[in-house]
Amino acid sequence: MDAAEFRKRGKEMVDYVADYLEKIEKRQVFPDVEPGYLRPLVADCAPQDPESFENVFKDIEKIIMPGVTHWHSPYFFAYFPAASSFPALLADMLCGGIGCVGFSWAASPACTELETVMLDWLGKMVNLPEEFLAGKDGQGGGVIQGSASEATLIALLAARTKTIRQVQSEKPELTEAEIMGRLVAYASDQAHSSVERAALIGAVKIKNVPSDDTFTVCGSALKKVLDEDKAAGLIPFFFCATLGTTSCCSFDKLLELGPICNKENIWMHIDAAYAGSAFICPEFRHLLNGVEFADSFNFNPHKWLLVNFDCSAMWVKKRSDLIGAFKLEPLYLQHHHQESGLVTDYRHWQIPLGRRFRSLKLWFVLRMYGVKGLQEHIRKHIRLSHQFEHLVLQDERFEICAEVVLGLVCFRLKGSNELNEALLKSINDAKKIHLVPCHLREKFVLRFAICSRTVESTHIKFAWQHISQLATDLLKTWGQNHHQQ
Amino acid sequence: MDAAEFRKRGKEMVDYVADYLEKIEKRQVFPDVEPGYLRPLVADCAPQDPESFENVFKDIEKIIMPGVTHWHSPYFFAYFPAASSFPALLADMLCGGIGCVGFSWAASPACTELETVMLDWLGKMVNLPEEFLAGKDGQGGGVIQGSASEATLIALLAARTKTIRQVQSEKPELTEAEIMGRLVAYASDQAHSSVERAALIGAVKIKNVPSDDTFTVCGSALKKVLDEDKAAGLIPFFFCATLGTTSCCSFDKLLELGPICNKENIWMHIDAAYAGSAFICPEFRHLLNGVEFADSFNFNPHKWLLVNFDCSAMWVKKRSDLIGAFKLEPLYLQHHHQESGLVTDYRHWQIPLGRRFRSLKLWFVLRMYGVKGLQEHIRKHIRLSHQFEHLVLQDERFEICAEVVLGLVCFRLKGSNELNEALLKSINDAKKIHLVPCHLREKFVLRFAICSRTVESTHIKFAWQHISQLATDLLKTWGQNHHQQ
Repeated sequence: MDAAEFRKRGKEMVDYVADYLEKIEKRQVFPDVEPGYLRPLVADCAPQDPESFENVFKDIEKIIMPGVTHWHSPYFFAYFPAASSFPALLADMLCGGIGCVGFSWAASPACTELETVMLDWLGKMVNLPEEFLAGKDGQGGGVIQGSASEATLIALLAARTKTIRQVQSEKPELTEAEIMGRLVAYASDQAHSSVERAALIGAVKIKNVPSDDTFTVCGSALKKVLDEDKAAGLIPFFFCATLGTTSCCSFDKLLELGPICNKENIWMHIDAAYAGSAFICPEFRHLLNGVEFADSFNFNPHKWLLVNFDCSAMWVKKRSDLIGAFKLEPLYLQHHHQESGLVTDYRHWQIPLGRRFRSLKLWFVLRMYGVKGLQEHIRKHIRLSHQFEHLVLQDERFEICAEVVLGLVCFRLKGSNELNEALLKSINDAKKIHLVPCHLREKFVLRFAICSRTVESTHIKFAWQHISQLATDLLKTWGQNHHQQ
Repeated sequence: MDAAEFRKRGKEMVDYVADYLEKIEKRQVFPDVEPGYLRPLVADCAPQDPESFENVFKDIEKIIMPGVTHWHSPYFFAYFPAASSFPALLADMLCGGIGCVGFSWAASPACTELETVMLDWLGKMVNLPEEFLAGKDGQGGGVIQGSASEATLIALLAARTKTIRQVQSEKPELTEAEIMGRLVAYASDQAHSSVERAALIGAVKIKNVPSDDTFTVCGSALKKVLDEDKAAGLIPFFFCATLGTTSCCSFDKLLELGPICNKENIWMHIDAAYAGSAFICPEFRHLLNGVEFADSFNFNPHKWLLVNFDCSAMWVKKRSDLIGAFKLEPLYLQHHHQESGLVTDYRHWQIPLGRRFRSLKLWFVLRMYGVKGLQEHIRKHIRLSHQFEHLVLQDERFEICAEVVLGLVCFRLKGSNELNEALLKSINDAKKIHLVPCHLREKFVLRFAICSRTVESTHIKFAWQHISQLATDLLKTWGQNHHQQ
């Protein structure tokens, strides 16, 4: 395919994508296919000779679309939102066209420099303390990671290296292996599984800190486990606070936890993967109070800020801590100039070496929506979640299971877990809307997450009427079959 | 921006990208900007109100392009190629439009299933042993990682977990920390820095295996270091063989190394990040002989197979080894059905949780080029590298520093490192072409990598004439200034 054909086909693809997104409501949100559906539809091996674009293009509707879960359908209420917007799609086209690999400043200066400045823009939008910004000569700064999992892992590894060095300088008789054996990381029992995974990768212990009745970790809970572990000779080194847990969007108490971490010399990382985008609204910024105690902070514009995946924003107060985790050579650490001023080599901030020009997406979205446009998007989602909450509360058969703070509603039928599992199954089998469940303590709970950029009040009303009707149908037969159990 | 405006702007962007790539020769391959150039050109913070597309669009040429290193210019001979093709750009547009997050089968079945099948296609193209393919009920299979660094890390972590379990079952008196303290990974002294980094992240020792005069690791070198380490009570567990080293594209001797690793129960991972694409040509496939001894194999279609970044293809013989590295619960490991047959949850195969629909790029490229078209691309690059090699060999002032096997030529002026550093500086200062250097033992060497999809014989001739002229100029003054030194 030459440039001339690309002009033609590219424009057809633009129209296809526009059509797909404009008419996505008409597609069934969850596919009908069974595992293994695709293999029989394609050849056994790649063709020897080139096929035409038309041939490939017609297979999109024939082979791909029947197996797509439509994340941008206004009837998709599962997981968390996956951001998507037209400015971000345009920026990604440009990113692909430029096709540079920005692992160092010299590999494409614009790629590195726009990223640093965009992370400053975004940091200011959520009113991060100055120390987290790169500015012209700051010690901190931001980076785009692929995912919150990577951000958590990077933070944990940086904390691990920092702590090992500190302990070694205080107690030179201890080997690195002995220190590693005593390190402990902490996170809420409500934290995302990626925190436990980071500890597994980093080969350090991790312990759950019990959350309270509101699924929140408070200072006393952390203090208690720290005291026990220190008494047992362990070395607490890392705490991952969650703002907006995956299950129910609860918030750990940063203002209590931060001072404890600072006093105990524990790296505090904040995972606000979903909730972080809401902090651009002044009325929700208080949820981030206490970030001033943190060493690193992360949220995903690719979840809720209309920037297509992948764009996970991470900030640190001391970039030298991150870089130090991967570059252990003393020689390197002497070159403070390289990483404290104008030249940033982002390869030292991340797991992969290569990196795309992802800041273009932020640049396009922040400018073409403006802060106000993005605030409007966040506020609409939160209005809609309260609308759904209100509908649930009006129905005595149902209960709300956790405070609705942002765009997630956790609810269930009053009754057994089996009943609620049956309700979810009937919802997802009908395939008119799509939800996923969670466990809150022993309770099986349905999560209703406001996801699509184009979801409106009518979709919420439809979803509730549908759920309510399915509940009615279910309770009829359930009453007959399960009454005596 | 609504769908109607996206149709308009998307088509403008298609034309912009087509223009950029068609006329890229006219742009200076390496930018003139100094560190910090970009910040003064943009606002201090994001705008409150939306800006127009026109406003943003005109800033591409004004702010971004002056700082771009043009990786797809036919005058770019630095690093390794970054793949780019029109079919891949089209597929990425579709990927962005669909915008699903394919962390599990259910999150978008097509995303998971196409990936599994495409990795089978690609595996067959390089004639991988059957064990590495998923097929309908294989124990192996492929996955798209973001980068070779991630593939190496994942392989090392899988090997670590597997070895710890084995050792624990044989010697239950050893703690996990004690075992960890004895584990050793190995790689060539020519291996990519990401291997050392993987060991650093995984908190295990790593040792260099000395390469020979041709920068190749042979069996006896590995055997020697293994014997020493085992005698010292260490536990060798992982060897990363390199096919196509970054410095000079040398190849470790798999047929000697593989049987040693198998006998010693050491996980052999093959990093063929750059070279792997060449194995689709039968005349280069012999370089991969010995892969049958490996546990995992990786190469980057996003380097040399015309699939835009990121698309790093990784295969394993036993998918349960990968999954086991991240999911330690015995309960999980009992569910063999989940991961041995039709349902694959790729989140267990990688570091991040989220993942884009990257297999679309492979599907578009493999079909629209066909195997023959891709072979042609590889062969053209290798012809051009030999053309450059030939030109270097005809000039007595220069020497070739390593065998030219694929698309990389390592060369230098006969003389001191200082002289060659000065030559490279004069080349990169002139900015007509762009190269990067490497060290081969004590020698400072210039790397001439065939990179662009559109590079032709005329560009090679131009590059050589340019280098040759700069050398002549340099040697004139160098003779005067350095003759007596």
